[in-house]
Amino acid sequence: MNRSTTSPVDARRQFRAGLIQPTSGWSAGYAQANLIALPRDLAFDFLLFAQRNPKPCPVLEVLDAGETFGGIFGSTADEADIRTDAPQYRIYEHGELIDSPSHALDYWRDDLVSFLIGCSFTFEHPLISAGVPVRHITENRNVPMYETSLPCRPAGSLSGNLVVSLRMIPASQVSDAVRITSRYPAVHGAPIHIGDPSLIGITDLDNPDFGDAPISEPGDIPVFWACGVTPQAMVMASKPPLAITHAPGHMLITDAPDRGFQVP
Amino acid sequence: MNRSTTSPVDARRQFRAGLIQPTSGWSAGYAQANLIALPRDLAFDFLLFAQRNPKPCPVLEVLDAGETFGGIFGSTADEADIRTDAPQYRIYEHGELIDSPSHALDYWRDDLVSFLIGCSFTFEHPLISAGVPVRHITENRNVPMYETSLPCRPAGSLSGNLVVSLRMIPASQVSDAVRITSRYPAVHGAPIHIGDPSLIGITDLDNPDFGDAPISEPGDIPVFWACGVTPQAMVMASKPPLAITHAPGHMLITDAPDRGFQVP
Repeated sequence: MNRSTTSPVDARRQFRAGLIQPTSGWSAGYAQANLIALPRDLAFDFLLFAQRNPKPCPVLEVLDAGETFGGIFGSTADEADIRTDAPQYRIYEHGELIDSPSHALDYWRDDLVSFLIGCSFTFEHPLISAGVPVRHITENRNVPMYETSLPCRPAGSLSGNLVVSLRMIPASQVSDAVRITSRYPAVHGAPIHIGDPSLIGITDLDNPDFGDAPISEPGDIPVFWACGVTPQAMVMASKPPLAITHAPGHMLITDAPDRGFQVP
Repeated sequence: MNRSTTSPVDARRQFRAGLIQPTSGWSAGYAQANLIALPRDLAFDFLLFAQRNPKPCPVLEVLDAGETFGGIFGSTADEADIRTDAPQYRIYEHGELIDSPSHALDYWRDDLVSFLIGCSFTFEHPLISAGVPVRHITENRNVPMYETSLPCRPAGSLSGNLVVSLRMIPASQVSDAVRITSRYPAVHGAPIHIGDPSLIGITDLDNPDFGDAPISEPGDIPVFWACGVTPQAMVMASKPPLAITHAPGHMLITDAPDRGFQVP
């Protein structure tokens, strides 16, 4: 079994059956998505939060209350189930992380609206194709993610700081990394910061807030992209009664081809 | 007074004072926007409709219930007022057009949420700069718009067909028109149809559903872009109790520079 050639449906079935591992490198060519499910009475505020913060929160799909598949995420209940098909979930009550189960069935409610948010894993394959090293894939680790000091634009009752993902890039290839990722605005697009982490409130690169510590080679510099874990920082800051998310790095794999997100 | 060099604030004040005319060609370099204001209890459905139909409904800004300015649309009440600063409005009750006033003050309610939707006028200046003729600007007319037979993807209680704008383009410059407009995905992006109008349900080019009849020169072919009047077709089909929109072609002029919408 080669994870990169596993189809989205097969990948989802493996995770549904209990496999837990980060999804970077899985199902090459298909978009992966961050998940946040919120009660219907917060759905407008969140969709507005996403619209006002499109770099961290590019919305790829919304499953309305009571829906567990559809659109770019399966066309039958057998093909996809939003409650079980991420490798791991996080359950937040009033902003507190209370559980990290392999499925969310025990916490699901029929009034939850599910938002699928674009993921930077989508542009990692084009980076690799262009010869830009993506070190957490090479090393089979989770991507490092950090909460920054940059506030998102609030919406209604929802606010929080931007979360970023980090890739260490050889100095001579930073331009390529910018050029390539800027063509994928629906999956976070161009980097939001290149260089000194302290300018955006990151004090210790070796201790990320989510994911694994970074691997670097001499001559690498830190390049930061807006990250779809931002909604989880929003949940911790805004304390909605219930939020169900994926575990960072353990994404939903969609049926949408990566190439559909490339512009122009 | 040169309309193309009028600042957004000055343009809005002129329309607030009662001037009624199409805004194509006004305030060069600043994004214009379609307006739809709906009661708060339909706001999630509409934002979802927009998210599911991003080509006709690219959301540039949302003013939450009770707000009349903000974000890319003025920073004080004196600079911008969503209720008065389009040259002309349309008022729909239960899907019926009941009035086309020069301001919407008589119909405004504090529970209305205002959505500003990107407008293809934004990419007309780059087209002209590249030597692609935009005939309705040259001729001082409104752009022709048509309701098609193509259904939008519904959201909750909202559904309707796609509306398109038409520009007649010389055959040798169609490639340029595609290339240039595809760099502006937030303002409708690349054309959705080039050539035979009957394939998308348009039977009579000379009688558009909105705006003025097209002007063409020998060798032109019809090029269609998704249009921000689509929410008005949705209103007519879905019959919400109240909707306030701009009159087609009579847009809101925002403070957002056009260049901010160019990718990559």
